[in-house]
Amino acid sequence: MTYELYYWTGIPGRGEFVRMALEDAGAEYLDVARDQGDGVIEKLAKAVATPSFAPPVLKDGDVVVGQTAAILLHLGPKLGLVPRLAAARLWVHQIQLTIADLTVEAHDTHHPVDVNAYFEEQRPEAKRRAEAFRQQRLPKFLDWFETVIARNPAKSGWLAGGKASYADLSLFHLVSALRYAFPEAMGQEMRRHERVAELCRKVAERPRLAGYLASARRLPFSESGVFRHYPELGG
Amino acid sequence: MTYELYYWTGIPGRGEFVRMALEDAGAEYLDVARDQGDGVIEKLAKAVATPSFAPPVLKDGDVVVGQTAAILLHLGPKLGLVPRLAAARLWVHQIQLTIADLTVEAHDTHHPVDVNAYFEEQRPEAKRRAEAFRQQRLPKFLDWFETVIARNPAKSGWLAGGKASYADLSLFHLVSALRYAFPEAMGQEMRRHERVAELCRKVAERPRLAGYLASARRLPFSESGVFRHYPELGG
Repeated sequence: MTYELYYWTGIPGRGEFVRMALEDAGAEYLDVARDQGDGVIEKLAKAVATPSFAPPVLKDGDVVVGQTAAILLHLGPKLGLVPRLAAARLWVHQIQLTIADLTVEAHDTHHPVDVNAYFEEQRPEAKRRAEAFRQQRLPKFLDWFETVIARNPAKSGWLAGGKASYADLSLFHLVSALRYAFPEAMGQEMRRHERVAELCRKVAERPRLAGYLASARRLPFSESGVFRHYPELGG
Repeated sequence: MTYELYYWTGIPGRGEFVRMALEDAGAEYLDVARDQGDGVIEKLAKAVATPSFAPPVLKDGDVVVGQTAAILLHLGPKLGLVPRLAAARLWVHQIQLTIADLTVEAHDTHHPVDVNAYFEEQRPEAKRRAEAFRQQRLPKFLDWFETVIARNPAKSGWLAGGKASYADLSLFHLVSALRYAFPEAMGQEMRRHERVAELCRKVAERPRLAGYLASARRLPFSESGVFRHYPELGG
């Protein structure tokens, strides 16, 4: 079965959390909009009984599912990227939802007051939100991820259980994205959060992912995406 | 088995999405912080291997789960508030995640740039964000919920399948909260979104919920909560 991923072309964005899991598992998938253009996203939404509010959307046979965390909830067992027990799978999902929360907050640093207006139209507000993000929210979230790894009873260095799950792959992508957006602040944070930093190193070394990350399939971050680097927003 | 719910005392907030499901099912639960004070929330987080980033948290025997949508994912089958098939359950969860997204956006209308500062310290920014929310985001989300009900193949008037799910109960709570926060805008929107309005009427008439909503267990909305009414933020 070939999976079909639908996500905006040109940015890694939230689609990348799904790609990381598919690539790590060596799954066959079509990146449909990158082949056929962004129009296919709306076309799919119009055609199904379960239209997603926004991409990414995954088509897996008859299942058409949106919301990044729900997609990974569906894919996790199929790709071998979750623990075996139901309670452990729920915990991985809970971690993924917290990754989603931090993603929204990172996005809102450059779009704090109007998601439909340009960054240039909300610069002073963005500056204030970015400062609160760097000084309060970012350390608070990273402290939490560090605690989660430290308390994992398996002592594996992963977030949950003895092996990597989709949440570990997502945390790697989130940290990469935050390093792009806030290089100075993240340089400091990564020295203070050694377990998170080590987890990210281990993810990058996984053979299939190392190949993927070096390939043209891995899209670069940019100022069109969810995670953006504006020097005026600080470190 | 008595469930234990941990959520900030004094506000309905996100805890209410969980309460709605527990109350509708007639489940036995302890509202622990309301009995013992907010200190128990941090105490629980310090004691477990799966600490939640934030409340609400549900304790169900050995399972300690946070993130509203993950709690409902866990409770849904136990409370009889999800369809039978896995794909339909995933769809209900996807809808719940979109309810969570709208909840964040509603919260951010009064805290657009600094979640740790008072509303009074971010009034101009809040005014701008609230305007974009009322004019663009709110109608876009409500259009989506209306479409979901309209496209439900069961034609039941519910979001998914032939019976009410936890997502329907959550949508009722969200609409109630938005009516409190933006009464004028929501009055207009509810006339334009008849299916959503009708779903909310049906939820309010469910016998156990009607009793709950009239009881002292149902906390009032206020300007300490996730959903707030500030006349200066407009209708």
